[in-house]
Amino acid sequence: MRAVIPFKKTNAKSRLSPLLSEKEREELAMAMLNDVTEALLGSGCFKVIDILSTSIIETGGANIVLTDKGLNEALNEYLKKMTSHSINEPVLIIMADIPLVSAGNIRDITSSSADIVIAPGRMGGTNALFIRDPSRFHVDYYGSSFLKHRDIALKNGLDIETFDSFNLSTDIDEVSDLSEVLLHGKGHASRYLENLGLGFAWNNGRVGIKRI
Amino acid sequence: MRAVIPFKKTNAKSRLSPLLSEKEREELAMAMLNDVTEALLGSGCFKVIDILSTSIIETGGANIVLTDKGLNEALNEYLKKMTSHSINEPVLIIMADIPLVSAGNIRDITSSSADIVIAPGRMGGTNALFIRDPSRFHVDYYGSSFLKHRDIALKNGLDIETFDSFNLSTDIDEVSDLSEVLLHGKGHASRYLENLGLGFAWNNGRVGIKRI
Repeated sequence: MRAVIPFKKTNAKSRLSPLLSEKEREELAMAMLNDVTEALLGSGCFKVIDILSTSIIETGGANIVLTDKGLNEALNEYLKKMTSHSINEPVLIIMADIPLVSAGNIRDITSSSADIVIAPGRMGGTNALFIRDPSRFHVDYYGSSFLKHRDIALKNGLDIETFDSFNLSTDIDEVSDLSEVLLHGKGHASRYLENLGLGFAWNNGRVGIKRI
Repeated sequence: MRAVIPFKKTNAKSRLSPLLSEKEREELAMAMLNDVTEALLGSGCFKVIDILSTSIIETGGANIVLTDKGLNEALNEYLKKMTSHSINEPVLIIMADIPLVSAGNIRDITSSSADIVIAPGRMGGTNALFIRDPSRFHVDYYGSSFLKHRDIALKNGLDIETFDSFNLSTDIDEVSDLSEVLLHGKGHASRYLENLGLGFAWNNGRVGIKRI
């Protein structure tokens, strides 16, 4: 079994720019990537962990596969290459911006017996995608990828399971999402934000975030 | 074991008023309550299911306990009454606006061995709260209730577990939340929204919702 993490460091997480500088966003992106990689390593499930990256990065425990392609192209090329090299093993594609993921989550999602398992992000996204037979699936991210991946599975006669996890559903895109990292995170990303001096702000009874 | 659902029908879900009339919001609130009640009944875990309601409502399979008190007061009075009547059994307090919850979720959260189990909502909320010994806990909703409930547990020497579920984390407050019901719901609330003619709209590559 192998895991693939698509990753973009350069000008990462632009929607966090109201609060974080470009350098801070890139450092946060790296911290989140490290959280995801550690969960994958900690699960003990994978022979190979590949990071499909658009730039050279340093991280432990995973291979860096450089690509200049977009998300869908890079991942579909990866799946095709597996097939053409007769590597017939399940793949977990997992996003680099879900720092709450745990090793237990990874063990649970990869132990499903379904052909395809989707861990949805909020608002129709796909945050993790477990593909039992990569020769029979392709990805289509952006927009409501949850619906698109469900349709691709159905068209290819594959059964599909939705993986129910708050941790996996929590991708970090907007400033308000950072609250979830401070509330629930225990890893690199939450320590990074705490060290930046970020803390909670209260707004109409809802939790927000600010520099303290 | 018993379950308690606090419920307010009158002018329910006011933040949905940009899209739904008052009557529709009340009907949606009832549909979501029915989804939650069915999950509780389907789990087979409870001797008693009480709905703490501010108005008379009709629903199947649960007792209606009328109250004119606010959320915290009503629930803390309920917990106190259990203690004073020597009803020493675990209680699951569950919100009425989490229509994605499944019977399996309920079985999982109530089978924890922790003293307190919290299923967080987004942005620091508490969507379900499993209390093994109601004489040793009180609730404090609003604001970041997740942090407040964690602190109350720690102060009372109770161990606490966070329950990881996208279904339970998805409370329906804002118009954008309705997308989650249409994307993932299978019950009363999703059928109600479909019958209203609500469907997906696409906005900057993100899924939104509109009347079709």
